[in-house]
Amino acid sequence: MCCTRIEIIGLKGFPDVKKGDDIGKLIVEIARKNGVELMDGDVVIVAQKIVSKAEGRIVDLDKIVPSKTAYELGEKLGKDPRLVEVVLRECREVLKAESGHLIVLTRHGLVCANAGVDASNVDGSGIRVSLLPIDPDESARRIRKRIRELTGKNVVVVITDTFGRPFREGVVNFAIGFSGIAPFRDYIGKPDRYGYIMRVTRVCVVDEIAAAAELIMGQGGEGIPVVIMRGVKFDWDEKAGLEQVIMNRSKWLFR
Amino acid sequence: MCCTRIEIIGLKGFPDVKKGDDIGKLIVEIARKNGVELMDGDVVIVAQKIVSKAEGRIVDLDKIVPSKTAYELGEKLGKDPRLVEVVLRECREVLKAESGHLIVLTRHGLVCANAGVDASNVDGSGIRVSLLPIDPDESARRIRKRIRELTGKNVVVVITDTFGRPFREGVVNFAIGFSGIAPFRDYIGKPDRYGYIMRVTRVCVVDEIAAAAELIMGQGGEGIPVVIMRGVKFDWDEKAGLEQVIMNRSKWLFR
Repeated sequence: MCCTRIEIIGLKGFPDVKKGDDIGKLIVEIARKNGVELMDGDVVIVAQKIVSKAEGRIVDLDKIVPSKTAYELGEKLGKDPRLVEVVLRECREVLKAESGHLIVLTRHGLVCANAGVDASNVDGSGIRVSLLPIDPDESARRIRKRIRELTGKNVVVVITDTFGRPFREGVVNFAIGFSGIAPFRDYIGKPDRYGYIMRVTRVCVVDEIAAAAELIMGQGGEGIPVVIMRGVKFDWDEKAGLEQVIMNRSKWLFR
Repeated sequence: MCCTRIEIIGLKGFPDVKKGDDIGKLIVEIARKNGVELMDGDVVIVAQKIVSKAEGRIVDLDKIVPSKTAYELGEKLGKDPRLVEVVLRECREVLKAESGHLIVLTRHGLVCANAGVDASNVDGSGIRVSLLPIDPDESARRIRKRIRELTGKNVVVVITDTFGRPFREGVVNFAIGFSGIAPFRDYIGKPDRYGYIMRVTRVCVVDEIAAAAELIMGQGGEGIPVVIMRGVKFDWDEKAGLEQVIMNRSKWLFR
């Protein structure tokens, strides 16, 4: 009898990413420096921050002129009105603006604080902030394609960011875009160990992959922005994207 | 330069657990059969279902007499009124009863569907259901103590169950009780890679561990109810418990 294994491998020594950097190429190079050759079926998890940096999604708050709404919200929440202005531009709708929190629905359909706009781990922090990629699925596709060009290997790419949760303390890493993988493992209609047909269980594996990767990624000065997971069982899907993971608003029970 | 690694190891061949079974002893035995010797600092993740079975937290719906409220809710939601009765007995409060969903606040403070009462993977499924352990932190402590008695090794134990999330499709595995580990990795007040002092990031590592473990656990006929994670960096904490992860109601933004 042999156990089943997954390995989570954190790549050390990632350089400071600048606008225009080729993330796919960097991943292949840094993996090799870490003694890791990418393999077919590897899941490559990439922190949103380096994708945003490479795509130039960095904003200098000094160049932002806040609207009246942004001033009012900033005052109410104790936030820099220029930051609020950037958040408002990134979001489809403000869901909650209270107790110092600005929870919004982003253009991608994500529900998160500050539309994912974040000052940490950006050079010139506090004045310069990073925005989420415009289309994280497309970012994932591009990185995946580049890895394939350079190595011939068919990997999956998942781009992640940490968000809070409504009823639990602390943040957890979530998938915000992906390429090559079906987001769910579906048990609906399958028998359990006693033959009972399960009716509801659909596991969001891309979010579980994101969460697992964060255990190595960390977030501070020792950050590891790229993690490889090897041995994950998943279904390939060339057309899947974040949209499937976003719950349609008509199904929201909590507002 | 060497990469950082975590291993997730699924133990195969777990027997059908019965009331009174010694889960700690079973884990040690099955680990050995899988060629795995537990080590200090291993994280042992245990699916709620086998803990509930060992603790006799199985209810025969045929023996339940539903209240008037349970009948009414059952009719409204299209659910078996006996199941609804069991859920009502397990919960502190019903938060949402609409669109076929019964979302409650459990006695532990968890917000989840059906108070975690579940018919899958219980012998006699459909008629017999499992309830969550009464005190999952205590269950974790007991399993951990037993593993220490039998092996001399100091491990962490995390008990998990899968729940849905308000704005995202699919379920994900969450920690519902744990022993030996601080639930959060805290970045508040620590510098990022540019020296910027982070103000808000507290990562809920026990939930990330739970999510990671589910990638191997699966849920169907091939379920692997116990997973070992090796190489996870965490802070030891002998006093920590689920209560810290539960967001105080006064902080809820979504209701």
